[in-house]
Amino acid sequence: MDSVMQSGKRMGNQTLVFSNPGAVISSGTIAGPMEGKGPLGEHFDTVLKEDTWGEDSWEKAERKMFEQAVRRAMEKAELNSGDVDCLLGGDLLNQIISANFAARELKMPFLGLYGACSTMAESLLIGGMLLDGGYADCVACTAVSHFSTAERQYRNPLEMGGQTTPTAQRTVTGAGCSIAAGPNYSGSRIYRNIFITAGTIGKVVDLGITDANNMGAAMAPAAADTLAAHLSDTGRGVMDYDLVVTGDLGSFGSEMFIDLCRDNGIDIQDRHMDCGNMIFAPEQKVDCGGSGCGCSASVLNAYLLDKIEKGELRRIFFMATGALLSPTSSMQSESIPGIAHGVVLERK
Amino acid sequence: MDSVMQSGKRMGNQTLVFSNPGAVISSGTIAGPMEGKGPLGEHFDTVLKEDTWGEDSWEKAERKMFEQAVRRAMEKAELNSGDVDCLLGGDLLNQIISANFAARELKMPFLGLYGACSTMAESLLIGGMLLDGGYADCVACTAVSHFSTAERQYRNPLEMGGQTTPTAQRTVTGAGCSIAAGPNYSGSRIYRNIFITAGTIGKVVDLGITDANNMGAAMAPAAADTLAAHLSDTGRGVMDYDLVVTGDLGSFGSEMFIDLCRDNGIDIQDRHMDCGNMIFAPEQKVDCGGSGCGCSASVLNAYLLDKIEKGELRRIFFMATGALLSPTSSMQSESIPGIAHGVVLERK
Repeated sequence: MDSVMQSGKRMGNQTLVFSNPGAVISSGTIAGPMEGKGPLGEHFDTVLKEDTWGEDSWEKAERKMFEQAVRRAMEKAELNSGDVDCLLGGDLLNQIISANFAARELKMPFLGLYGACSTMAESLLIGGMLLDGGYADCVACTAVSHFSTAERQYRNPLEMGGQTTPTAQRTVTGAGCSIAAGPNYSGSRIYRNIFITAGTIGKVVDLGITDANNMGAAMAPAAADTLAAHLSDTGRGVMDYDLVVTGDLGSFGSEMFIDLCRDNGIDIQDRHMDCGNMIFAPEQKVDCGGSGCGCSASVLNAYLLDKIEKGELRRIFFMATGALLSPTSSMQSESIPGIAHGVVLERK
Repeated sequence: MDSVMQSGKRMGNQTLVFSNPGAVISSGTIAGPMEGKGPLGEHFDTVLKEDTWGEDSWEKAERKMFEQAVRRAMEKAELNSGDVDCLLGGDLLNQIISANFAARELKMPFLGLYGACSTMAESLLIGGMLLDGGYADCVACTAVSHFSTAERQYRNPLEMGGQTTPTAQRTVTGAGCSIAAGPNYSGSRIYRNIFITAGTIGKVVDLGITDANNMGAAMAPAAADTLAAHLSDTGRGVMDYDLVVTGDLGSFGSEMFIDLCRDNGIDIQDRHMDCGNMIFAPEQKVDCGGSGCGCSASVLNAYLLDKIEKGELRRIFFMATGALLSPTSSMQSESIPGIAHGVVLERK
């Protein structure tokens, strides 16, 4: 990490700097059938043949995905459940039941988070702090989403057969877990070179979008705000990153993000990718791409971490974005605020 | 803090120890009309005359309570919004919309948490870590709940006029905010002597309770588990605390908690109080007492902090307890797991 970031634990208004950064040592991913047929299909640890995964409800399948993503990551690093000091994570369901019920099975100290689709970054940010500060030696940061549970909770029952709008994104059926460890960790690991070196806590930003079928537009302003804060806090430019990766802005939201960054004097176009644009192929006809906290969680853990490990990416700003709506707030005529949390992942 | 706790940031399996502990410098509380008529009525900063607080929905009133609890705490310590480095908190509503929409108005870096009724302790635990680790100089830890929004979301619309069972608790209409600051903070403060010296992260515990009208029983096992872990991790006994205060077990859950502690060889009876038993008077006929994350949040911030400041309590273990149910999980025949997070608050 460059010298300017060594000076303290806090930098600027929103950024935490980790001087004893935790390392991502393992990852686990579970993807749904359609995600498995997408461009990243071969990278997931497990691809489901059918989206209930043998359970009698989609909700139970979603919780199983959360749990199994953690277990898969633990197996790869030969960890027992007592080795993980803290599980952090969440999902999109009311009262984050997927995470809560999975935590019951995993029997680890658990911090439940709700950041909508920003949850993977929020968990890495707090998990990174637990490691850097010496409060834990090993943490599991996890998020999950499921197309069929999200549709019936946020929009309409699938059985209704409603059509999607051109700006709609498809909630990813996917789970991702990053296991990260501090300097005292001496066990097995599948990654040796990936460190969580900083994080930027997002603010809730609202430009007045009210269309629950246009989440990308609701989240793009928050992503632009957090990126601007991160660069301002750290004194860095976009060129200090090989990639600025957003969670699930999708194609429409990504265009808006690039425009908003330009308004802030930040040219991001050549360095930006969006997990929502990466997970499905155009011929899969998913309108504006993938969404859901499982989108960025599965793309990060199945694909991006490996790129950093191999040195194909040296430093990325992973910024997951959340749309903070609920059916209740939408029915009460509220707009959809967004939030984006970011973490710096880099090869060292 | 005793010498045994000085050795590291981590102690045992679930406990974080803060060697540069943050100090609680201010608090803000808003209480509903019925809570205002209870035994702690005179201690709340604001007591609402009617539970919509001039808004056109209970949900909007709840978010206003979250926001105003933070603003009240800031005013008392003469803080501007730029002075707070991080807002942490949540509520009981789907997608924590009360906290999210309040955070939009407060324009602070925000970490959204979901721990059901354990949220006040979870936010103090993570906030305490932000301060101890030097990642922030000032944090606002907040939780809110509202009787009328919780009833219609978790149980039945109030308009239905359903009767309560004898084990039912009443969700507290209340919000509480603790503002805490690190050693670099030199501004105004209303408390000078209260420090967040340790925290214990809870595990999800489930003894198979399925009755959504008996939340105390669902949460008591988690409270007993976290207390046992805390004492084991720290080598302390109950006598090292003036008070072990639980969030909202209510009268039935408190009895169960005391019994479960006894099974663990811990005699807690003389040192235990429960916020749910403190907030309403018997003549208010609230069956088994108060519940909701606003219960422990408002009792802590309106009443307990002042007792510590004055030296009437020297060290307490504040352990808020959450029942991790959702209407969906209940309808899918799931039991109700619980979680309890604890923080040590002490006079120094």
